[in-house]
Amino acid sequence: MSLSRYFVLTETPTGLPRQDQFTLKEAHLPDLGPGEVRVRNRWLSVDPYMRGRMSGVTTYVEPYDLDAPMEGAAVGEVVASRHAHFSEGDRVRHMAGWRDLAQLPGDDVESLPNYDVPEQAYLGVLGMPGMTAWTGLNRIAGMQPGDRVLVSAASGAVGSLVAQLAQTADCHVVGVAGGKAKCEWLRSLGVEAVDYKGKDASELSAALGAASPEGFDIYYENVGGPLLEAALANLRDHARVAICGFIDRYNATGVVSGPSNLHQLLFRKARMEGFIVLEHWAHYPTFLDEVAPRVARGDIHYRESVVEGLERTPEAFLKLFSGENEGKMLVKLS
Amino acid sequence: MSLSRYFVLTETPTGLPRQDQFTLKEAHLPDLGPGEVRVRNRWLSVDPYMRGRMSGVTTYVEPYDLDAPMEGAAVGEVVASRHAHFSEGDRVRHMAGWRDLAQLPGDDVESLPNYDVPEQAYLGVLGMPGMTAWTGLNRIAGMQPGDRVLVSAASGAVGSLVAQLAQTADCHVVGVAGGKAKCEWLRSLGVEAVDYKGKDASELSAALGAASPEGFDIYYENVGGPLLEAALANLRDHARVAICGFIDRYNATGVVSGPSNLHQLLFRKARMEGFIVLEHWAHYPTFLDEVAPRVARGDIHYRESVVEGLERTPEAFLKLFSGENEGKMLVKLS
Repeated sequence: MSLSRYFVLTETPTGLPRQDQFTLKEAHLPDLGPGEVRVRNRWLSVDPYMRGRMSGVTTYVEPYDLDAPMEGAAVGEVVASRHAHFSEGDRVRHMAGWRDLAQLPGDDVESLPNYDVPEQAYLGVLGMPGMTAWTGLNRIAGMQPGDRVLVSAASGAVGSLVAQLAQTADCHVVGVAGGKAKCEWLRSLGVEAVDYKGKDASELSAALGAASPEGFDIYYENVGGPLLEAALANLRDHARVAICGFIDRYNATGVVSGPSNLHQLLFRKARMEGFIVLEHWAHYPTFLDEVAPRVARGDIHYRESVVEGLERTPEAFLKLFSGENEGKMLVKLS
Repeated sequence: MSLSRYFVLTETPTGLPRQDQFTLKEAHLPDLGPGEVRVRNRWLSVDPYMRGRMSGVTTYVEPYDLDAPMEGAAVGEVVASRHAHFSEGDRVRHMAGWRDLAQLPGDDVESLPNYDVPEQAYLGVLGMPGMTAWTGLNRIAGMQPGDRVLVSAASGAVGSLVAQLAQTADCHVVGVAGGKAKCEWLRSLGVEAVDYKGKDASELSAALGAASPEGFDIYYENVGGPLLEAALANLRDHARVAICGFIDRYNATGVVSGPSNLHQLLFRKARMEGFIVLEHWAHYPTFLDEVAPRVARGDIHYRESVVEGLERTPEAFLKLFSGENEGKMLVKLS
């Protein structure tokens, strides 16, 4: 009942991390301290931003310490509590992921809201990825009805919500994804899909131009690389580029050249802005009010890639960079 | 009295324009039409943005037509008027530069304000370059008292006002310029000067870090290239980069790689925005109210590089790209 199995990072990876750089350890938890809760995790989240925490340096989040329990979003059930707000059986979300049994201050734990959605939705479409989509569109890019919106990694956990939120705001949405299956899924949602596979920056630029001849008011950036260059070439006047991530470079080992046409920001009087969703978390209730009822009604579509078993968490994490996942990548614990 | 000498561009330049691509022509002006004025130009402005108008394509301004009279800011005296607001002897500013005698609708002409400054100041520190400095700092970068401000081309017409306006707002100002003389002048204004000459991006980055160990809240960008990369490496959280120009690439003929560290925008939750001052011209009276009395009192320092004679206008223009001008480049007509 008190044995916790957890992952530690044993080495700072260069390039794409290897599975042997993650080690599963176990330890008996101490007795619950005052104000603490113990949570049996049922779902773990793996997310691209975690790669940044493995670099050994502070990027926009603190790095993981080597040989210490790793962290990440998780959903589970309270199995013991010495905190006034939580009782056994409560369903909660917290950041003590990458493990099966978590023990932490109750103040660092949130109860799951009561919408009629599967609990793991609070790690995806109604969790950090969903809030990231909403924040980038609304608080960074200042989406207006009728905007022409371009989104990269459009079939992913963040991108697919970006596309659907923009559709609801009567925007014309073009989504970029890799491969036929992902593009087909996007088209089934009514999103104009562009397959980036096999295209260089100039071919991508032409494809984006064909998909939206008048260009784009918003580019929601998850990827970087040639796609950023192609997007810059297709901006409209006063366009806004919300930079959510640059997954293209998270595992890069050499120098990655920036886009050769950054002057488009000048010519188009455009704005490019990076953000991290945690700084906007005070708006999470607004996001939830707006999006959760639509998810519960089935009006918003989302997909999950589920890997089963704690020991496969590193494998799930690495799939984020192979392009083989569809939608939100999750680890299900038994 | 009606002979106008004017420059035309005879060829679309590739790379740095050549003097033989500009031709001086002359023509007798027709009689004044209703509402028109005739202006004897006394000062012509040459500005880096004009290079963009020579490219044959629309960037953020319309291109110059080949073999048609070129345009640019000019200050002169009305010598004939059929417009109710203007009389002979009025001192005016307008956009029919690159010529000695201009004839144009009075509606396209402004009277010079009555501050106690030399008339050519309305082409520099109190003209488009000055307004550009003020707009980028205040309306794009949202300057706040105490900000750490970095400015490139800091001894130039725009940069030197950026530096002094930021100083007035109690900002710590670091200015980058090329060569000892320019840096000495900046230091005489109390600006911390960094000489970019002989430094690559990494050395520049180290020099900027030494000049402001806590980084920069604002980067006022006139240049591009390795300096942009060095500046990105030294941004503080929530920094704002105002892109006024990328003079580094105006004459580039090949592909110019962008900064290799654009992800700093993400890590620092920073914003980069291009702008063109014309879109902000409604605020020119506010700028003038704030800055002109200080220029008249001698509290703001500015420099001019003056070339004499209409026929030397192309030469003056080309000096903008050689780095040999100091402050605002002007052509004085006799």
